[in-house]
Amino acid sequence: MIEDLDFRYNLELNFKISELLIFIMSKKQIYLDYAGTTPMDPRVERVVLKHLRESWGNASSVHEIGRQARKVIEDSRKTVAKVLGVKSEEIIFTGSGTESANLAIFGVARAYKKYGKHIITSKFEHPAVLRACQYLEQNEGFKVSHLDVSKNGIINPESVRRALRPDTILVSIMYANNEIGTIQPIAAISKILKDFRDSRRLQVTGYRLQMYEKALLFHTDACQAAGALNLNINQLGVDLMTLNGSKIYGPKGTGCLYVRRNIELAPQIVGGSQERGLRAGTENPALIAGFTEALKIVDKNRAKENARLTELRDYMIGQILKTIPGGCLNGDAIKRLPNNINISFKDTDGEMLMLAFDQKGIQVSTGSACTSTSTEPSHVLKAIGLSDELAKGNIRITLGRQTKKKDIDYVLKTLVSLVKKLRK
Amino acid sequence: MIEDLDFRYNLELNFKISELLIFIMSKKQIYLDYAGTTPMDPRVERVVLKHLRESWGNASSVHEIGRQARKVIEDSRKTVAKVLGVKSEEIIFTGSGTESANLAIFGVARAYKKYGKHIITSKFEHPAVLRACQYLEQNEGFKVSHLDVSKNGIINPESVRRALRPDTILVSIMYANNEIGTIQPIAAISKILKDFRDSRRLQVTGYRLQMYEKALLFHTDACQAAGALNLNINQLGVDLMTLNGSKIYGPKGTGCLYVRRNIELAPQIVGGSQERGLRAGTENPALIAGFTEALKIVDKNRAKENARLTELRDYMIGQILKTIPGGCLNGDAIKRLPNNINISFKDTDGEMLMLAFDQKGIQVSTGSACTSTSTEPSHVLKAIGLSDELAKGNIRITLGRQTKKKDIDYVLKTLVSLVKKLRK
Repeated sequence: MIEDLDFRYNLELNFKISELLIFIMSKKQIYLDYAGTTPMDPRVERVVLKHLRESWGNASSVHEIGRQARKVIEDSRKTVAKVLGVKSEEIIFTGSGTESANLAIFGVARAYKKYGKHIITSKFEHPAVLRACQYLEQNEGFKVSHLDVSKNGIINPESVRRALRPDTILVSIMYANNEIGTIQPIAAISKILKDFRDSRRLQVTGYRLQMYEKALLFHTDACQAAGALNLNINQLGVDLMTLNGSKIYGPKGTGCLYVRRNIELAPQIVGGSQERGLRAGTENPALIAGFTEALKIVDKNRAKENARLTELRDYMIGQILKTIPGGCLNGDAIKRLPNNINISFKDTDGEMLMLAFDQKGIQVSTGSACTSTSTEPSHVLKAIGLSDELAKGNIRITLGRQTKKKDIDYVLKTLVSLVKKLRK
Repeated sequence: MIEDLDFRYNLELNFKISELLIFIMSKKQIYLDYAGTTPMDPRVERVVLKHLRESWGNASSVHEIGRQARKVIEDSRKTVAKVLGVKSEEIIFTGSGTESANLAIFGVARAYKKYGKHIITSKFEHPAVLRACQYLEQNEGFKVSHLDVSKNGIINPESVRRALRPDTILVSIMYANNEIGTIQPIAAISKILKDFRDSRRLQVTGYRLQMYEKALLFHTDACQAAGALNLNINQLGVDLMTLNGSKIYGPKGTGCLYVRRNIELAPQIVGGSQERGLRAGTENPALIAGFTEALKIVDKNRAKENARLTELRDYMIGQILKTIPGGCLNGDAIKRLPNNINISFKDTDGEMLMLAFDQKGIQVSTGSACTSTSTEPSHVLKAIGLSDELAKGNIRITLGRQTKKKDIDYVLKTLVSLVKKLRK
């Protein structure tokens, strides 16, 4: 609305000054918990600030201030759709990855229950998926099959085929695991579901054929994958996909759900008719634009950043296993996110190790942040069959845009001495 | 974490420059749709920016970056609790007013259904309440009584008493209406519910007494009221209260739900254990702190701002009714929000009037933004018994912090000429 150039100029200046200051003052902080959450990219921050100021209207208002807010949202929707290779009406903006995954699972379950009440998921999904499935099982009469995970943290697509039943309406498998970073064979699972749909078609006749055939949907939680993996929906073959801002240097409190055309969903939050009636509540255009900018940046830099991180990751894994006895890498060494290092040490307490790191200004995690308040061993490490001892001695180091080779070397040195000390 | 003084100083400067620029360049825009949404207060903006930079951690992480994010959230919770006169563990942060109202209604209904499945609400609640009730009625076997509203837009507390049944578990009545601004007798309704609980106690014996007695809860949607009315929970006597940021010069995408101690709620969004397991998903500390700052400012300036707005409101209402024939004020003239002017004109189309205003750089609304995409006459105006003609000729003018007497005079002049023109 207002071309506020001086404001923008000053903003640029601020960012430069403050980035410099942060660089000088924070050289002793090494953040290696990028899978927990990412700081906001300065370019995203600029977009958020701009729209907090300029696009504060209620996007449901018909007047100019409202229309401007609406335009920011709809432009964002087009951009997100372009990144995923889909139509913009297939994108639903939400308030988090958790909310998106809930909308996918509750939404499909409640809309398609007339065709069946069986859901397939895996043992090592994010709690946003597992608890939604559990809720449906405990309260709404659904049956949920939890697929086993192989020792290397990857789901065998054939196990999906074996779990399919005539009343299966939904399969929800994550794209990459949030703790051990293993990448799941999403396209292969899509292919199996397509075959199954075709075989269903042969068995069913009558006017309900089309709906019944369609009523086997595939959702993937791609929150952890979005930073590194291909998000093209046609290549993945999924019907629903969850993304969020918090893991891709975007604003927290943002997410989106891709929903293939013609899929009915029961709404998760009801009220106004925002987001096609699937997610009521006045939108925040600044957050939506920020999420979109973050996704755009991630998409553009993916190949280059993946190569850089993979090299750092493999160097670090190699050095850890070489210099510290009794360590083992959790999850496949190749089919894993370029930034994920998840290692267990014998005779070591991961929690203590994490806290000792923290005292030295190095942030890593054990388990995921989402379950960090629990003292139970991680359900992910249990799912890949880790012993209680190794699950206890677990640490997750996740790299990111600010990670440099010299950080890795410093952390390696620290790790060697900390493990030695803890083992005494 | 980092005391970035230069950044802050520059930020202050920015705000001053940009406020000045906006003032100079926007003098022909008169926004009078503060009930639709409010712009963000510059003081709130500063808080949001600060925490977007400094408190970007995942509040569930145990390390320093996580703990800092956690601290911002817990400090905010204490501040909000203080404004409402309650304990901080009674505050649940959410992503919008709609989400809060949904959590209250779905949460109580699903947790207390063993005690009864009857809900009382009114005919002119916000869609966030009405649609949640409708969902429960259509899908989960609940019965909902919709109370009538008097001609002046106020609910008679006695009608609540008459609607109470032994299986009533929830009453949800808004604190102030979002379209016509009428203030509801919340404390009087609380008193009636207390009496009813006491009478229930006499009828029930056995160990389930305590739960049964407690299982009649009172929720109020205070989104529209928060800017102007007393929010002291003890004086209101409610068990649950919905607030949001979007109507109090805070960030959109924020809200909170007050939940009295010992009240069980079924969660609305499931996954991690954030917000006592009632609202999963990684929190955005910056938004939570911004909402809190907005609430603090509103609370501090309430009396003074109410006096100022009431004077402007009554001046404007008086002038409209005096100078334009065939106009009538909707809703009680006294028991209404200090910023709300809702008027219907005979032989005039409210939609056309709103659009004509918009072309002159004046933003008002007809109906509420949340239902603005609908062509149905407003359910609120229907509830107070307005004829279709008057409902069609409706306009809502809502004042706010930036509204000055000279704006009102300019808008009055414009209104007179626009109504004349439209009636031709």
